[in-house]
Amino acid sequence: MGMVGGGRGAFIGGVHRMAAALDGQIELVCGAFSSNAERSKLSGADLFLPPERVYGSYAEMIETEKKLPEDVRMDFISIVTPNHVHFGPAKMALENGFHVVSDKPLCFDLEEAKELERLVKETGLIFALTHNYTGYPMVKQARAMVRNGDIGEVRKVVVEYPQGWLATKLEDSDQKQAAWRTDPKRSGIAGAMGDIGTHAENLAEYITGLQITELCADISTFVDGRLLDDDGNVLLHFDNGAKGILHASQISVGEENDLNIRVYGTKGGLQWFQQEPNTLIVKWMDKPTEIMRTGVGNLYPAAQAHTRIPAGHPEGYLEAFGNIYRNFAKCVQARLAGETPEPIYQDFPTVSDGVRGMEFIYKVIESGKSNQKWVKF
Amino acid sequence: MGMVGGGRGAFIGGVHRMAAALDGQIELVCGAFSSNAERSKLSGADLFLPPERVYGSYAEMIETEKKLPEDVRMDFISIVTPNHVHFGPAKMALENGFHVVSDKPLCFDLEEAKELERLVKETGLIFALTHNYTGYPMVKQARAMVRNGDIGEVRKVVVEYPQGWLATKLEDSDQKQAAWRTDPKRSGIAGAMGDIGTHAENLAEYITGLQITELCADISTFVDGRLLDDDGNVLLHFDNGAKGILHASQISVGEENDLNIRVYGTKGGLQWFQQEPNTLIVKWMDKPTEIMRTGVGNLYPAAQAHTRIPAGHPEGYLEAFGNIYRNFAKCVQARLAGETPEPIYQDFPTVSDGVRGMEFIYKVIESGKSNQKWVKF
Amino acid sequence: MGMVGGGRGAFIGGVHRMAAALDGQIELVCGAFSSNAERSKLSGADLFLPPERVYGSYAEMIETEKKLPEDVRMDFISIVTPNHVHFGPAKMALENGFHVVSDKPLCFDLEEAKELERLVKETGLIFALTHNYTGYPMVKQARAMVRNGDIGEVRKVVVEYPQGWLATKLEDSDQKQAAWRTDPKRSGIAGAMGDIGTHAENLAEYITGLQITELCADISTFVDGRLLDDDGNVLLHFDNGAKGILHASQISVGEENDLNIRVYGTKGGLQWFQQEPNTLIVKWMDKPTEIMRTGVGNLYPAAQAHTRIPAGHPEGYLEAFGNIYRNFAKCVQARLAGETPEPIYQDFPTVSDGVRGMEFIYKVIESGKSNQKWVKF
Amino acid sequence: MGMVGGGRGAFIGGVHRMAAALDGQIELVCGAFSSNAERSKLSGADLFLPPERVYGSYAEMIETEKKLPEDVRMDFISIVTPNHVHFGPAKMALENGFHVVSDKPLCFDLEEAKELERLVKETGLIFALTHNYTGYPMVKQARAMVRNGDIGEVRKVVVEYPQGWLATKLEDSDQKQAAWRTDPKRSGIAGAMGDIGTHAENLAEYITGLQITELCADISTFVDGRLLDDDGNVLLHFDNGAKGILHASQISVGEENDLNIRVYGTKGGLQWFQQEPNTLIVKWMDKPTEIMRTGVGNLYPAAQAHTRIPAGHPEGYLEAFGNIYRNFAKCVQARLAGETPEPIYQDFPTVSDGVRGMEFIYKVIESGKSNQKWVKF
Repeated sequence: MGMVGGGRGAFIGGVHRMAAALDGQIELVCGAFSSNAERSKLSGADLFLPPERVYGSYAEMIETEKKLPEDVRMDFISIVTPNHVHFGPAKMALENGFHVVSDKPLCFDLEEAKELERLVKETGLIFALTHNYTGYPMVKQARAMVRNGDIGEVRKVVVEYPQGWLATKLEDSDQKQAAWRTDPKRSGIAGAMGDIGTHAENLAEYITGLQITELCADISTFVDGRLLDDDGNVLLHFDNGAKGILHASQISVGEENDLNIRVYGTKGGLQWFQQEPNTLIVKWMDKPTEIMRTGVGNLYPAAQAHTRIPAGHPEGYLEAFGNIYRNFAKCVQARLAGETPEPIYQDFPTVSDGVRGMEFIYKVIESGKSNQKWVKF
Repeated sequence: MGMVGGGRGAFIGGVHRMAAALDGQIELVCGAFSSNAERSKLSGADLFLPPERVYGSYAEMIETEKKLPEDVRMDFISIVTPNHVHFGPAKMALENGFHVVSDKPLCFDLEEAKELERLVKETGLIFALTHNYTGYPMVKQARAMVRNGDIGEVRKVVVEYPQGWLATKLEDSDQKQAAWRTDPKRSGIAGAMGDIGTHAENLAEYITGLQITELCADISTFVDGRLLDDDGNVLLHFDNGAKGILHASQISVGEENDLNIRVYGTKGGLQWFQQEPNTLIVKWMDKPTEIMRTGVGNLYPAAQAHTRIPAGHPEGYLEAFGNIYRNFAKCVQARLAGETPEPIYQDFPTVSDGVRGMEFIYKVIESGKSNQKWVKF
Repeated sequence: MGMVGGGRGAFIGGVHRMAAALDGQIELVCGAFSSNAERSKLSGADLFLPPERVYGSYAEMIETEKKLPEDVRMDFISIVTPNHVHFGPAKMALENGFHVVSDKPLCFDLEEAKELERLVKETGLIFALTHNYTGYPMVKQARAMVRNGDIGEVRKVVVEYPQGWLATKLEDSDQKQAAWRTDPKRSGIAGAMGDIGTHAENLAEYITGLQITELCADISTFVDGRLLDDDGNVLLHFDNGAKGILHASQISVGEENDLNIRVYGTKGGLQWFQQEPNTLIVKWMDKPTEIMRTGVGNLYPAAQAHTRIPAGHPEGYLEAFGNIYRNFAKCVQARLAGETPEPIYQDFPTVSDGVRGMEFIYKVIESGKSNQKWVKF
Repeated sequence: MGMVGGGRGAFIGGVHRMAAALDGQIELVCGAFSSNAERSKLSGADLFLPPERVYGSYAEMIETEKKLPEDVRMDFISIVTPNHVHFGPAKMALENGFHVVSDKPLCFDLEEAKELERLVKETGLIFALTHNYTGYPMVKQARAMVRNGDIGEVRKVVVEYPQGWLATKLEDSDQKQAAWRTDPKRSGIAGAMGDIGTHAENLAEYITGLQITELCADISTFVDGRLLDDDGNVLLHFDNGAKGILHASQISVGEENDLNIRVYGTKGGLQWFQQEPNTLIVKWMDKPTEIMRTGVGNLYPAAQAHTRIPAGHPEGYLEAFGNIYRNFAKCVQARLAGETPEPIYQDFPTVSDGVRGMEFIYKVIESGKSNQKWVKF
């Protein structure tokens, strides 16, 4: 693995490295950790990389690594930069034969996203987008339960992603994470809806297997002087007739990272909270609610295959993130070995999920400005 | 107290009686428990009433009681019938000098509601509407906290009222509660939105002190053949610029009666669940979340005045309901004594809250049918 | 009902009155609310009693009421005084043909307790002890589940009753509740173990249907200068070979009234918390934990018969307390009518439960002073 | 790192590898994964190790690695075998200059434990025992709060470790984990008390900074034919006069791995559950309970230094385990560099904690057989 971004002071780069290391399937061999060559070197040294594999730019990394012997050079790149620097390295990597893992959202704008999708199809390379919340075992259990009809036909979906960290104008301090997320030049057309709204959309569609067909959005910027949205409330229609609500917020004071979802079908209901991820609450008609737990009882294979340790030993965010890397790595290994990966490993968000996420951002922002009730998706 | 409705087989009548009895301030002295005179008699006997004070109709009751000596006759009537039988007894009681407690929603339609409001103003009689959820001490604590600016200016409100009991066509069985609630002739123009959506609206406005100014509703009937809505998702705008979401549902399988609310201000957030009513969760920026509990520590006077027993001894639905009756009774007692009731007792839902609830029903149903995004309230 | 104690400033008297009023089966007709005749009069007036039915002593009340016509005089007395004033009125009431409800623990000492038990047997009168926590519907569900073998043979019981209100020397302030509870002259030989430890013992034996056969206690007084215990940890052996732990505390800072119990059998486990009483958590081997809730699904008849309102409308402490009064009242009514009460109503703590509680207090205090490991019960 | 044990089919070996890999500070370079040389080879290949670094025994590994150049050979061994194979490799590693990480309990018997402690002192090598539950950030927060007097002087400690997985005779199936844990030849003199009771003891002493001075234990074997204890209830006395309860169980049906602790001081109380490890509940007198959360607000440095990702991104068991490895690695790196490690890294369980754990096992088993109430510790 060669990393683009994620040098000193970054948040998500370290997450990617820990997630990739967890299962002993991936080795960090090189990186372009910063557009500042000096900072990139220092970051590489922190990570015990040999100086010659630490590059000053992703372009230098891709060009140089390409020339190394096959058993030495990186097999794929991992892109952990702000949104506006996703497209460049992804495109170049694909054009030079490297598989790609990229942080979400896929790109800065929809045009870039579609271009990447085209390139992935053309090259046949493997592309994983780290919509990491779908990596949790109990999310996979929920998806399997819906697919198997355990809760009947889905009628109502409520997905929420409240955070409170941007309830004040944090971007005016030197908080790097706040700064780029609220900057249209680096984030794109959306703030909260792009940063976390897309996670909510992805989670809802992943679990239900349904697609949003139209939406009605109320998009707000509560903090004076902020340039992008920091809150959004959205009504949803799904392709099977189900109705839904999606709301995401970065001004919900006191909320940490409380992504959660409820899915109600004709026979039962499901409830999952990201902050207590090893629990899936299952509700039934006229029967006790059940607390399904990672590792307990007869869960579906998809849940079991993404759990590492026995019941009662909580797995968390890094483990879910690691599931995407593990699955991606297994698929890359299979490709290198000329084999077909096991179906259980073919379960990670793709470039097409990324395009869908970008479209969601566009539709939500369009709806937020519209006086018309429904915007088709 | 003379009761209208609430005979054998009814649900809410018994609730009113227990709530009224709880604090030893109110005595049930007569009733017209059923439009069937025989059933009314039997119900009265169950309640140890003398046969001569058990009537075959509310009209008979009001006329007869009016002629009794002041210290014998009922002081007020309590109306616990289905929606379409609220207006008649309320109007007649007011016109004959009796105070009124009525179950919600106020009436069958908006016209009736406004007529009652006019009559209450004209007669100066006391009218309480049992939007009982505002009777909980921690709801009063939440309201006081918002009023006192403890959480700053309100920005976002999420109020939910999911139930699951009508996820199948229960009205086709002989379930009396389901039958009238899904019947336009007895319920009015709305099903779930009238039955429970109004509670959510009332709770949100009571706690925040804000008023909804426009809304955008997605109203559904999921159960085939049902004549009224059983689910609704609504975007809200409040008069101070706050945004909100209200959703109510009777098809959310496995949910009991999970009314809950979250209010986020510029400085803090509040969260309350009706099913665990003695707890108010208070969230702050960069500080631990607090669990406020009935009877613990220095709560606002309004919370303390509506709590009967020390911390850790859970009070529930009947006690909250009883707070409305207790406050109403104290105001009636003050009136009879020619005194002004203490301000703390002047806290119960009025006929005007009822009119507002009826308007909410009309606007939500109107919005549900409209292609325009926002409907003014 | 005639009440002994419970005048202005008392806590538990009001609880008894609300609990007795709740179901419309019991009327407060007289009282001796204080040993101070003037205060008794004032308290009676607060309760709308006619002055001639408000007495200056329990002796006066019993003597006077006895002479009233049968359909006027009280049917039973309710004793809500501190422990040292339980025996006197109970004895006199029984000797004069009145049924008795008494607060717990039964008496000041074991000798008194056994004398009362003898009197109840001799007179055949009905005696209820308000170990109110066994009045909760989900406690009755738990008991029925154990009896029916749903969790197999019981192996382990953990019962806890932590409170924090006496973590400082509150009895030195003018807190009336603290003063008598920590005073050996009014409480008897035990503090926390008598006041709340007996509730824990009663709950454990009620739910499991087992009897404690020996125990090993570590009894402490943490607050300097306090005269009775404020904390106790006890190992238990039950008559079927099950093992247990009971601990009660009044110095567990921040705990309100957190009585709770876990019972583990060979096939399943049960968990109940008094502060969230409408929930019973049921654990199984290799299957999801279930959340049983008051009013949801197919609960045992004993749970259903002690629930007043539908699922999701929380019932609390007063309703559980009211169940004891309701059942007692139904048994008294049956007696007056010369009928046998329905078995479901014969479920309330008796004088024998009270004797057992007194014995528990004696054994725990004995064990606390002993160097021997086990004390037979 | 060279690993002893942890081949195919093992549980804890994989945990150690993931925990060690997480922070990029440790590389697995060799291993003796099984006493069966063939299985060891296969396990090594699974882990991408070169065949020449995969050994058939720990002795072979230590001898061979010792001869490799300093910059190639392993720096320390990690022992992940059943209890009876802890002493051998630990002793040999210490005698040959290798640092040691060992799973707990320290050894098979107390004599071995003391011999290891002597060797560590003699050699000055670094020894970490993976009492992993003390690696959680909120456990470190709790410890810091007690140390800083935030909750006053500790009075009462309740520590529980219930599991249910051995409620049936699982050791009769081919469940490897159950088999050795219930076998006195591999586990030592205790079952549940050794396997998990020691974790509870370690957690209680770590958080409170107190030492148990005497105890009174009730030790049981509930499952017929089992050779070691599967449940134990213990009363504790601490060196400052505090009282406590410790219970551990493997027959508490439906419990996963519910280690939890409550500590009550004169001013406040703390509560932590291993299964929801990012939360620390803090209770106060007459004030709302606080929910402290990993990454939220102004936690003590020890909590912050053991947290990897921002609030709301749950860290779990592997991250806590990883904290021990990370701290150990930082101390080994400092040693290799001739530096003193930062104090924050010197926080991991040592050989002396291991000796204390072994003594606890001995005292608990002794007390369980005794008729005397207290056994000195």
